[in-house]
Amino acid sequence: MDAVLLVGSGETTLDIEYVTGFRAVDPVVCLCSEKKRWLVVPEMEFGRAETAGATRSVEVLTPARLGIRRNMQRRLSAWAGAVMKKAGVRTAVVPGWFPLGVARKLERSGLRLRIAQQDLFPGRAVKSQEEIRHITASQQAAVIAMRAAIRLIADAEIDGNAWLQQRGRRLTSEIVREHIMKVLLEHGCMGRDVIVAGGRQAADPHCMGEGPLRAHESIVIDIFPRHLVSGYWGDLTRTVVRGKASPELRRIYQAVRAAQTHALRTMRPGKSLTAPHRAAVETFASLGLVTNREAARPTGFIHGTGHGVGLAIHEAPSLGAVAGKLRAGHVVTVEPGWYDPDIGGVRIEDTVVMTRHGWRYLAPCEKRFEV
Amino acid sequence: MDAVLLVGSGETTLDIEYVTGFRAVDPVVCLCSEKKRWLVVPEMEFGRAETAGATRSVEVLTPARLGIRRNMQRRLSAWAGAVMKKAGVRTAVVPGWFPLGVARKLERSGLRLRIAQQDLFPGRAVKSQEEIRHITASQQAAVIAMRAAIRLIADAEIDGNAWLQQRGRRLTSEIVREHIMKVLLEHGCMGRDVIVAGGRQAADPHCMGEGPLRAHESIVIDIFPRHLVSGYWGDLTRTVVRGKASPELRRIYQAVRAAQTHALRTMRPGKSLTAPHRAAVETFASLGLVTNREAARPTGFIHGTGHGVGLAIHEAPSLGAVAGKLRAGHVVTVEPGWYDPDIGGVRIEDTVVMTRHGWRYLAPCEKRFEV
Repeated sequence: MDAVLLVGSGETTLDIEYVTGFRAVDPVVCLCSEKKRWLVVPEMEFGRAETAGATRSVEVLTPARLGIRRNMQRRLSAWAGAVMKKAGVRTAVVPGWFPLGVARKLERSGLRLRIAQQDLFPGRAVKSQEEIRHITASQQAAVIAMRAAIRLIADAEIDGNAWLQQRGRRLTSEIVREHIMKVLLEHGCMGRDVIVAGGRQAADPHCMGEGPLRAHESIVIDIFPRHLVSGYWGDLTRTVVRGKASPELRRIYQAVRAAQTHALRTMRPGKSLTAPHRAAVETFASLGLVTNREAARPTGFIHGTGHGVGLAIHEAPSLGAVAGKLRAGHVVTVEPGWYDPDIGGVRIEDTVVMTRHGWRYLAPCEKRFEV
Repeated sequence: MDAVLLVGSGETTLDIEYVTGFRAVDPVVCLCSEKKRWLVVPEMEFGRAETAGATRSVEVLTPARLGIRRNMQRRLSAWAGAVMKKAGVRTAVVPGWFPLGVARKLERSGLRLRIAQQDLFPGRAVKSQEEIRHITASQQAAVIAMRAAIRLIADAEIDGNAWLQQRGRRLTSEIVREHIMKVLLEHGCMGRDVIVAGGRQAADPHCMGEGPLRAHESIVIDIFPRHLVSGYWGDLTRTVVRGKASPELRRIYQAVRAAQTHALRTMRPGKSLTAPHRAAVETFASLGLVTNREAARPTGFIHGTGHGVGLAIHEAPSLGAVAGKLRAGHVVTVEPGWYDPDIGGVRIEDTVVMTRHGWRYLAPCEKRFEV
C-alpha cells in the first residue's frame, strides 16, 4: 500500500491528530507508511509534538532536521518533499482536500499523488475504549447542560402575549445558549454553535436561533460539546414546548420519537448502515407524513439519520443512504427530525456506541416534550 | 482579471464569509468576478444564504437550481463546474489551499485553475468602520476577562511551598481558563484555546498551560475571543507574577515592554510592515539578550511581532520580515515575547487599529507585572 501524505493543521486535518496524537496549531506535514509515521512540525512545536507522539512511535522532524535550506523552510511543499525523500517514497495517497498548491509543487519535482477514493483511516470509525471514555465525558456534559437548559425553559413564566419571561425579562435563545455554554465549561467542555431555536427558526435545522422564545411552540436544543483536553465531541438534541403543543406539533413529535425508536431497533453489529435511515423514513411515511426537499422551504425529514462522532463532530460512519455495515466500536448519533415552516421543527438525537451484541447510550437523557 | 473560485466551509475558507456575508456550516462553492458573486449552497441553506448575501448582491444558487443531475448533486466539483459555466468562465484563480480533488475533476473537464501568488482579497486587511466595531467588541471582552483573571491570581494566597491557593484549593491554569471563558461568554464571545501558562510552560509560546500555578514565576495569559454573532476576533496577552519576580525575570519583562513600546513607535500609515519587528529585535539586542532558535528548546524572541486580526485570528498583514506598508484600517497585534526554559516566558500583546495619522488601542488594558 502507498504511504499516506497529510498536510494541514489540527482543526482542518483531524487524521493527523488521530495518527500522531498531536494537535497542531499551525499547518504540519505527516507521512504514514504501513510501518512508520513521520511528522514534520515547526521548530517551536518540536517538544510538544515529541511528547504527544511518544506512545505511537512517531518520528518527529523539523525543517532544519530535514536539512531543508533556510529560504525554503517556510514552504510546506519543501517539508513534504523532504519527508517523502527520507522515507524513500515516490508516490503517496492523499485526501481529496489536500492543498492544490502543495500538490503542484510536489508533482513538478517528479513525485506522484493519488487521491484516495475511500476513507484513509477507516479504523478511525471504530473507537478504542479510551476514545469511548472521552466521547462519554463530552456526552455526559451535554446531558447535564441539556437538563439545565430545559429547567430554565420549564421555569419560565408565560406572559399575556405568550412570550417566555424569566425574572421579569424575556427569555431568549441567547440567554439559554449562554447558560448551556457555562455549564459545559464547568464540565471541561466547549460548546460551539449550540442551537436553541424556537418557532419558525426550529424549522431550519442549521439555524442557531436568536431572540425571544415563545410558549406553545417547539424549541430545538442541539448541544455538541468538545472536550477541551481530549478534543472528542458529544452530540445531543431534545425538543421541548413550554406550555401546550398544538395537535399538529404533538403528532410530529410522536412521529420523530417513533422514527428514532425504529431506527435504533435496526442497529446491531453486522447490520446495514442504511437500515436505521430506511426505518426512520418508513416510520414517517407510515404515519402519512410527506417530505418535500424541493419546496421553497424544504419540509419534512430533510437530513440523514446520523453520523459518527469522535475527534470530528461529523465523521464516519454516516447513517443515511451510503452502504456499509455497523461494527462494534462505532459511535453514532441517531437523530431523525421533522421540519415544517408552518408548524415548527422537532429533532431528537442521542449518541450511542455499538457493542458486541447491540448498542447502548453513551449517556442516557430523558425525553420530555411539554414542560 | 480572472474570476476567483473558492471551495470550503465557513471555518476553513473565511474569504467566502468575507465576500458573501454567509458563514457556511458545510462546504460551499463561491465564484467572484470583478462584477458579480455567485454562491452555491446545499438546498437546506438557501434561505439563510440569501438573507446573509442580500446586501452584497450575491446570487445564491443550489445544485438543483444549477441543473446538476441528481446523482452528481453531492459533488463539489459538479457545483464548481456548473457555476463556472453559468458565469462563462474557463479559467479561475484559486488559493493554494484549494482542494486537489475538486481541482483534478475541473481540469479533467477542460477548465483551468491558476494558483494565486498573493492574497486573493487584499482589501480584507483594511477594515471598515463596522468591522472595527466588531473587533473592538471582542477586544473589550478580552480586557474584561483579563482583569478578572489577574484579580483571581492577585487574590490567591501563597502557601509554604509557593503554590497559589484559592479558598483552600490550589489555583490551576484550568480554573483561571474556565473563569476567563465564562466572563467572555457573558460578553457574547467564545474563548478558544485560552492560554494560562506558568513557569516552564510559559516558556513555550503555544503551550495552553495545565496544572497548579506557582508564586514568583511568570504566568502568561493570552486571550483571543471570537464574537459569537459577528465572528470577529480580539487578541490580548498579559504576563503577571503573583509575588516577587527574580531579577532575571524582571529584566526580561522590562525588555519585552520596551520592545513593544519601540515597535509601536515605528507604526504610522505608509511606514514599513517590517519596521515594528526590526525595532523589537533591536531592543532585545541592545539589552544584551540573545535569541537562539536552533537550541533544543528555542530561547528568546522566537516569533513575529504581530499579525492582522479580523474574521481570522491570524490574517494579513503580518508584522515580521515580509515587506509591505502599514495602511489606515489595518488591525494588528503587537506582541513581542521572550522565552527561556530556565527563567520562564513573557509576552505582552495589544491589538491596535491604524488610523489616518498613527494608531490607537482598540481597547486599552493596563499592564501590571507583580500582583
